[in-house]
Amino acid sequence: MTGLQMRSTGCCQFNPKGRNKMSRPASSPKPPYYAVIFTSIRSEGDNGYSDMAERMEVLASQQPGFLGVESARDQNGLGITVSYWESLEAIRLWKAHAEHRIAQIKGQDEWYSHYTIRICKVEREYSFETQPDK
Amino acid sequence: MTGLQMRSTGCCQFNPKGRNKMSRPASSPKPPYYAVIFTSIRSEGDNGYSDMAERMEVLASQQPGFLGVESARDQNGLGITVSYWESLEAIRLWKAHAEHRIAQIKGQDEWYSHYTIRICKVEREYSFETQPDK
Repeated sequence: MTGLQMRSTGCCQFNPKGRNKMSRPASSPKPPYYAVIFTSIRSEGDNGYSDMAERMEVLASQQPGFLGVESARDQNGLGITVSYWESLEAIRLWKAHAEHRIAQIKGQDEWYSHYTIRICKVEREYSFETQPDK
Repeated sequence: MTGLQMRSTGCCQFNPKGRNKMSRPASSPKPPYYAVIFTSIRSEGDNGYSDMAERMEVLASQQPGFLGVESARDQNGLGITVSYWESLEAIRLWKAHAEHRIAQIKGQDEWYSHYTIRICKVEREYSFETQPDK
């Protein structure tokens, strides 16, 4: 997400309300679509981070053009969240969302010592899944 | 990476030998450049995964066009590795690397129950870092 690391919920499958979360890579539409890679280092302490992150996750999943999200935070503290969107405009609108803007400011003030956000166009995608008989 | 989840080493800074790893988002050149988002679920047991992952990490960092990597595996088992490359050709050459090909096959046979690989063009990037006086 742009400015707020979601909780490490694994990921949610692609659906407009962000329900049916599963700990597996998110399914996705045929490329092209867009990805926001948010890599972060948390500051010490929660400081309201968990509650706001949960709220932002719900809000994001309700945005037009939201496709899904995958998130993991390593034991060394590095977090990677990749959210997927139908268009750059959908990403722009979410970044500009009033409540999200407040979270972005709080993120810089209290939650993160460092983050990098990369806006990407997903050009190709392929998956592997173990077959039931394996 | 294409077919092999690297160890959860946080990330390494951008440099051709993949040294100077730090638990922070990777620095990167001015876009455009390319990202490979590799999201995976590990199978049970190590089965030689750690050794091969370490070997692949070294090999990848020696490939032409390698820029860096960020990796995290969540406690729920979802892993996200994002590797960065100068070009699609650099990604293609790494995917086709003979030893990496073997690892990709072993990954499907033994290490992963599911993975998704997304090839992306990084179009924009911006970062935040806490100032020393904060």
